[in-house]
Amino acid sequence: MKPVVPFVSQTTGHERAVWLTALPEALSDIATVKPISDMTKAERAAARVAIVANPDVAELAHLPDLQWVHSLWAGVERLAADLPQDGPKIVRLEDPQMAETMSEAVLAWTLYLHRDMPRYAAQQHRKLWLEHPLKRPNERTVAVLGLGNLGTAAAKRLAGNGFDVCGWSRSHKEIAGIATFSGENGLAEVLSKADIVVILLPLTDATRGLVGKEALSRMPAGGSVINFARGPILDTGALTSALDQGHLSHAVLDVFDQEPLPDESPLWDHPKITILPHISAPTITATATKILAANIGRYFETGDIPAHVDRKRGY
Amino acid sequence: MKPVVPFVSQTTGHERAVWLTALPEALSDIATVKPISDMTKAERAAARVAIVANPDVAELAHLPDLQWVHSLWAGVERLAADLPQDGPKIVRLEDPQMAETMSEAVLAWTLYLHRDMPRYAAQQHRKLWLEHPLKRPNERTVAVLGLGNLGTAAAKRLAGNGFDVCGWSRSHKEIAGIATFSGENGLAEVLSKADIVVILLPLTDATRGLVGKEALSRMPAGGSVINFARGPILDTGALTSALDQGHLSHAVLDVFDQEPLPDESPLWDHPKITILPHISAPTITATATKILAANIGRYFETGDIPAHVDRKRGY
Repeated sequence: MKPVVPFVSQTTGHERAVWLTALPEALSDIATVKPISDMTKAERAAARVAIVANPDVAELAHLPDLQWVHSLWAGVERLAADLPQDGPKIVRLEDPQMAETMSEAVLAWTLYLHRDMPRYAAQQHRKLWLEHPLKRPNERTVAVLGLGNLGTAAAKRLAGNGFDVCGWSRSHKEIAGIATFSGENGLAEVLSKADIVVILLPLTDATRGLVGKEALSRMPAGGSVINFARGPILDTGALTSALDQGHLSHAVLDVFDQEPLPDESPLWDHPKITILPHISAPTITATATKILAANIGRYFETGDIPAHVDRKRGY
Repeated sequence: MKPVVPFVSQTTGHERAVWLTALPEALSDIATVKPISDMTKAERAAARVAIVANPDVAELAHLPDLQWVHSLWAGVERLAADLPQDGPKIVRLEDPQMAETMSEAVLAWTLYLHRDMPRYAAQQHRKLWLEHPLKRPNERTVAVLGLGNLGTAAAKRLAGNGFDVCGWSRSHKEIAGIATFSGENGLAEVLSKADIVVILLPLTDATRGLVGKEALSRMPAGGSVINFARGPILDTGALTSALDQGHLSHAVLDVFDQEPLPDESPLWDHPKITILPHISAPTITATATKILAANIGRYFETGDIPAHVDRKRGY
């Protein structure tokens, strides 16, 4: 008898249907994947690992022997907040294809800012033919905040395309060819030279509101911000003030305090903000299911739980 | 006595002032650079080389011993059309920094299309939160038309960032790692698989209108076009028809039949066209003047005229 792995998720519609087709297929050699609601009491009692995507944490309590959960997402801050510290271990999705997609998004929207696309779009609207001075990419400093697998891939991709890149993380990291900084003083230093700040931090107690009024005021005049991580890391009020006062020139936001961004949000109409509907690096079903199958298969063979979230740090 | 090199140009204002400062300085060791209007008759009689930027060709006739002209621009189609075939040789500006800047522009606006930026901008306008399926870059075929130094650099840059790239030129060229095609059949083949067509051809009798109704109809449905070369290579009427009928999805135009694009042009308001004011790869004064100084200096030493335009081909 193959073990039954519960799928615990509040996803609905097409997204849910896609996972409930792809996961059972990808894990078919090692396990049977079922929505938790379809499982017998005996199956629930036997479950040691669950696959989760925005789960209702109360449902996980129906799995008394649960050792760990494998998230389909890279960001697990809600799960980490809701699960007890001595509860099941949390394994994030670390998909190299997602790092690739995220680094592409960072490059794409950095070039969008670097090549003045928002300004030329506004000019087209006014039928204005006007050339602006062009900088070379090595005259443009891009600071990547957060040097996990996504941030590291993004920093390398930017450097490979000629930008002057520096990176910051809470604890110090070395990346070949990238100037890296850490700690509070490091953050101040990185911000003070960043023409473009790219936020790729995990959301934790330490990063909530980290990029606020003080941080933004350290940036050189005319700078821009890209947030591809989580909404609450960037203080939206401080951002719009800095844009309105002309200190900053533009922001690209893919994540928000509330998603979808509510109709009544003033951000939609802000001429200096580009709004994206959380599309910088979507989970890719084909590669994600393979990674889950490999991790869960190895666990059934060896009992080894993959690298998981440090509950004190929150990521 | 240093030779006097005439500067023959209808540029005005700031642009003219920049050149008339930078050129005399860069060439100061080898020559005196003067606007042709400031030269004595004897100086004009002695001139064998001139620096040109959109010159009035009638003025060049006042230089009876002129052997060659060095253009400050990469595109010399007007000069080639206006100068007699047995007249002075035409040397284009081939600036590696310009190839770098152009390849960056090609990458930037290819990513703009690849990551659906025009669509997300339209959605922001309507406050619509909606994600669209994402392709990997290797699922996106980009055809670069024209494989001179700009096209070659662009094709390599796109391939280096993961796109499926093919290239086309009139006469066959080999580029390591890029599938290249030539001739009429080659063009049909390249167009038939191109999700994005990037035009980087010189404007000649053979390329005028080359990307017209027939060429665009060969592209797969939903394709896009980027024109960073010269306006008349792309038939604007055929393009807008293909966009309006829904066969093509978007066009990025940096060059036009008439520049600046006139106020009354319907292109300004077309929702599927991004208008740029000829900014993809501006001549960079600092590097261009160095290249001219080296080429003209070598000529004074050795009598060698650099590689020049084949007047039959037109480039």
